[in-house]
Amino acid sequence: MTMITETAIEADPNLPIIRITRDFAATPEQLFRAHSDPALFAQWAGPNGTDTRIDHWDARAGGSWRYTAEHRGQVFAFRGCFHDVRPDRIVQTFTYENEPDSVALETLRFEDLGDGRTRLHARSLVDSFEARDGMLASGMETGVNDGYAKLERMLADGTV
Amino acid sequence: MTMITETAIEADPNLPIIRITRDFAATPEQLFRAHSDPALFAQWAGPNGTDTRIDHWDARAGGSWRYTAEHRGQVFAFRGCFHDVRPDRIVQTFTYENEPDSVALETLRFEDLGDGRTRLHARSLVDSFEARDGMLASGMETGVNDGYAKLERMLADGTV
Repeated sequence: MTMITETAIEADPNLPIIRITRDFAATPEQLFRAHSDPALFAQWAGPNGTDTRIDHWDARAGGSWRYTAEHRGQVFAFRGCFHDVRPDRIVQTFTYENEPDSVALETLRFEDLGDGRTRLHARSLVDSFEARDGMLASGMETGVNDGYAKLERMLADGTV
Repeated sequence: MTMITETAIEADPNLPIIRITRDFAATPEQLFRAHSDPALFAQWAGPNGTDTRIDHWDARAGGSWRYTAEHRGQVFAFRGCFHDVRPDRIVQTFTYENEPDSVALETLRFEDLGDGRTRLHARSLVDSFEARDGMLASGMETGVNDGYAKLERMLADGTV
């Protein structure tokens, strides 16, 4: 199986969904930890130069989370609830607090490829194609690519 | 404005969404209470003859809920988390526990029509048209219609 070493960010043609796919030299357990442990998540999420502060984080089905991200002097706040927290899957809601009426349903899936490699499948479902295309146009690509590059380094140096 | 006294259940042609619209002789506050107070919700939800038991219910942003519904000797369990609980809007996730990988994002909106009337806009967003059409084919219509008829009686007799 070919490794997806570049991050693939795709807009579904028929559904208001963004799909992100990325392979890591990591076990599913490591990717689960990187996404569920707040101290680890804060170290890699977002574009380079982001200072992520966890306000609240209760990673269990029925728990909730909130964090702020400071980047180039601006502070952005995000929040949501955890619907599912399983070793192979995290399902959560996601809102950028400046747009409180917009809610995405996010699903993270950790697919074991064997040989210490895992494919991350991340999916954001929203309620309109306009909202989905707005997310894609917002510069999310830089945050996603920078974030996964940081995560890759943390996996390589044993932080995760 | 014409009252929508029959419940309208509509499949969006372009999005994996079910929309339900229904007018009630009620204030937005009453409809909010009927959907957020577990003791009230348990009295009207589901088809006639349903015995709803609240297992857990914490109606605040970041809270969660679970209930079981016994109907004709069968027990069905449902659970989710509350993303938003506002006087005009409730956003929550929804899973039928026998299909644990299926998650819907539900939005309830209470639109004040004046004169003690309120329009309920309920929306379920799922991740495929197959899942959406499966929900419609599952007999949800009876549950929705019976439930709102019970709610209407509870509004008329002062229970809500």
